[in-house]
Order: sequence, then C-alpha cells, then structure tokens
Amino acid sequence: MNRIYAVGIGPGEYEKMTVEAMEVLKECDVIAGYSVYVDLIKKYYPNKEYIVSGMRGEEERCIKAIEKAVSGLKTAVVCSGDAGVYGMAGLIMELGAKYKELEVRVVAGVTAALSGAAVLGAPLGHDFAVISLSDLMTPWEKIEKRLKLAAEADMVICIYNPSSRKRAEYLKNACDIMLKYKSRDTVCGFVRNIGREGQESEILSLEELKNTNVDMFTTVFVGNEQSMKIKGQMVTPRGYIEKYHSN
Amino acid sequence: MNRIYAVGIGPGEYEKMTVEAMEVLKECDVIAGYSVYVDLIKKYYPNKEYIVSGMRGEEERCIKAIEKAVSGLKTAVVCSGDAGVYGMAGLIMELGAKYKELEVRVVAGVTAALSGAAVLGAPLGHDFAVISLSDLMTPWEKIEKRLKLAAEADMVICIYNPSSRKRAEYLKNACDIMLKYKSRDTVCGFVRNIGREGQESEILSLEELKNTNVDMFTTVFVGNEQSMKIKGQMVTPRGYIEKYHSN
Repeated sequence: MNRIYAVGIGPGEYEKMTVEAMEVLKECDVIAGYSVYVDLIKKYYPNKEYIVSGMRGEEERCIKAIEKAVSGLKTAVVCSGDAGVYGMAGLIMELGAKYKELEVRVVAGVTAALSGAAVLGAPLGHDFAVISLSDLMTPWEKIEKRLKLAAEADMVICIYNPSSRKRAEYLKNACDIMLKYKSRDTVCGFVRNIGREGQESEILSLEELKNTNVDMFTTVFVGNEQSMKIKGQMVTPRGYIEKYHSN
Repeated sequence: MNRIYAVGIGPGEYEKMTVEAMEVLKECDVIAGYSVYVDLIKKYYPNKEYIVSGMRGEEERCIKAIEKAVSGLKTAVVCSGDAGVYGMAGLIMELGAKYKELEVRVVAGVTAALSGAAVLGAPLGHDFAVISLSDLMTPWEKIEKRLKLAAEADMVICIYNPSSRKRAEYLKNACDIMLKYKSRDTVCGFVRNIGREGQESEILSLEELKNTNVDMFTTVFVGNEQSMKIKGQMVTPRGYIEKYHSN
C-alpha cells in the first residue's frame, strides 16, 4: 500500500506545528505545496524533492504528488493551518480515489480559527461557525444564507477569506447581514498574518468592523451576544447559566 | 508582569501537541489540569508542581493556578484539544481580570473537530459549525435552535459532548432536528477516544446515526449535502461549482 500524507503545518511558525507533522515531513521523500508555505518549511527539511506551485495550481500539484506516492515515494502535501479545513486533504482523496493501492492519511494542524483565536484571547469559548467568504467555488447566495443563519443562531462566527482585491466589499456585505441579528456593539476581532512576521490584531465592534478594510491574510471573529472584552482580550464565556465574576 | 498560560495539548497523544505547547510546559513551574489530561503529560514533565482536580473542579483549579502565577511562578493550565474551544482560556481571563499585573497567554492546540476529522478523512472541507450538546451551562432551547439553523444552512456540523449517562437521548434528539433539513442519507461519522488507546470510528448515514448510542468521549460529524464516502473516508468537497472526478 502506497501512502500520501495531507499535513497541516499550522499558521506558519515552525513551533506551531505538531510533533506528528514534523516527524511525517522528516520521513518523506517528496513534499508538495503552495510556494509560500513550502518556503516556510524548506529550511528545516533541505534534502527533499519539492513540488511547488502558485495558488491556482492546487489540483495539478495534488495530481503530481499522488503520482509520486503511487510510484512508491513517501509523499506529503502541506497545507497552511489544518489539512482538512478548506485544505487539500479532501481534494487528494477525490483525485486519488482511482488508485486502489493508495492510502491517504491526514495529519491535523492548528487552523486559523484556533491560532487567530489564541492571539485575540478566547473568542471561541462557545459554539461557533467557520464560514469562508470566497465565492470562487461557492455561490454567494449560499454564503449569505450561512451568515444569516449563523448570526440568527447567535453563534460566534469565524470568517476565512474575508476579502481580496476583487472582493473588497465582501466583509462589509457580510457585516450588514450579521447586523440584522447581532447587535452593532457585538465584540469582534481580527488577526492579520497570524503567527508570521507582521502579525497585527484588533478588537472592535461589529459596526466598526463593517467600516474596516481587511486583506486576504486576515481572519475575522464576530462574537456572540455574551462575548466581551477583558483587559484587551476578546472572551466568549463557556456558558449562559453559570456566570463568573469578570469586573 | 506575571504570566499564566492556557495550553491546548491536543487529543491526548504527545505527538499531537504543538512544539510551542511542549516548550511552554517545559519552562513552567506549575501545571494545573483535569486529572485525566495531567496523567497524559506528567511523565514528560516530571519535576513540576501539579494542581490536579476532577471534572467539576475547573473554577477552583483555575483560581489556584492564577494565585500561583500571581505569586511569581510560571504557571500553565492544560486543556485537552484547544485551550479556547470550550476550554479554560476564557475562564482564566474572567477569573484573572482583577489582577492588573497578570497576563493570560493562550497556546492553541488541535481541537477534537480537527483531530477527529483527520481520523475520518476530510469532513470539514467546507463551512462548518461546532455545537456542544451539553446543557450544563447552556439552555437546551438554545442548542436546539443552533442545530436547526446550522442544518438549514447546510453546514457540516461537528458535535461535541453528544451524550452522557444523564443525557442518553440527546444525540437522537439532535438528529431529529437536523433531519428536518438534512437528508437521511447525509454522510456522517463519529470518532471515539480520538488519538488515544481504544480509538474507534465509523462512517454512517444520518438516519443510522440517529439510532446509534455514543458516549461522552465521542465527537460526531454530520456532513453537508455534498459530503460523500470515498474508499472508507468521509469527504466534504471544498466547493460547489468546480467539480472533480471522484469515481
């Protein structure tokens, strides 16, 4: 049985990887990935065959990696964050389905919802939804519906891909939808370049978030009705019934 | 400034921890945690002062840990999975708010949604919600509403705390709610004892899930309308528009 690994490497810093991810990469002959992430890890694993491509080359890169694995080489496809959350793991399973002797193993990693949350404080202390605003492969109506229903459910909402050059207005539109169900004072936050050079974060209200421009390297958090700011950190309590002092 | 760390240690195996979590624990004088998780890490960090308590002792344990940190000892509170997702991080911020000279740092970890997903395949490839069925601190009506709206939004739903001795019927009730919006054939999965001895997993339909008993050590995944089973793995594709071959 040949094996290919989909490996989540976390937000970028080497120390945010799991021990398992490090060990799998160490043992691989071939490592495939988006150029930015390969650059982050290449120095730690110099003697590997690398398959590198740009952002649009995902499918091709996965096919090349699968072919390497099928040829008997121990192969990993690296993904930023987790390997499964909007990651390559599922794509590799779909593309690799035709090879009976290929096994796909997933090595989980710290996705931006978790690494970004740790920067802000503890925004994900209660039920939450993770929603991407990218409409490259998802109809915008579907995204809108999810934002609306997640806001109506008073879930904390973590937003991936909040913006890009072509989609400058998307976060503003998303905020308008959420503002129908969430108060304008809802505690929100965002983190840019999580765990990388130039990391920036801010805690602000939903109304302020609506009027803020963020880029594609940003992860956004919109609190639930109980989220609050404590000493500069965003905190969502774990419950509704038991209340703790938080003067 | 005194510092206390909330550290997510992942699902249990040492190798599922991040390098950062390992390093922070190595440097701490005091480590506090629920007895089961402390037992998992104690052998790697033998020369520490441990504050251990049972499942109900969370608030007391955090207060003790905060007092240690305020006294100048480098202190960590360990949580299974991530430190923030239904974890101790927010509680420590609430309880620690009164100490001006105390800084709370969060070290993210691989929460059960991610580690469980990796066992099943790639169920979280698109937008998802994480919902706990525990009504200890959350009114059941709120949980029901979230399940309903997340199902209506066709999000993948990851369920924490699906059952316990006192709440044997909760998962069945949750499935009934989701079945109003999701097909009975929706691909679902569950993982028990993720990353620990006795790990078990199964992929099944939503209808079958409804008639399955799981325990409190289980994490449940309910797919979206596109989730499928590929060679024994649960996969949610990353998009709706672009379709790949998956024969």
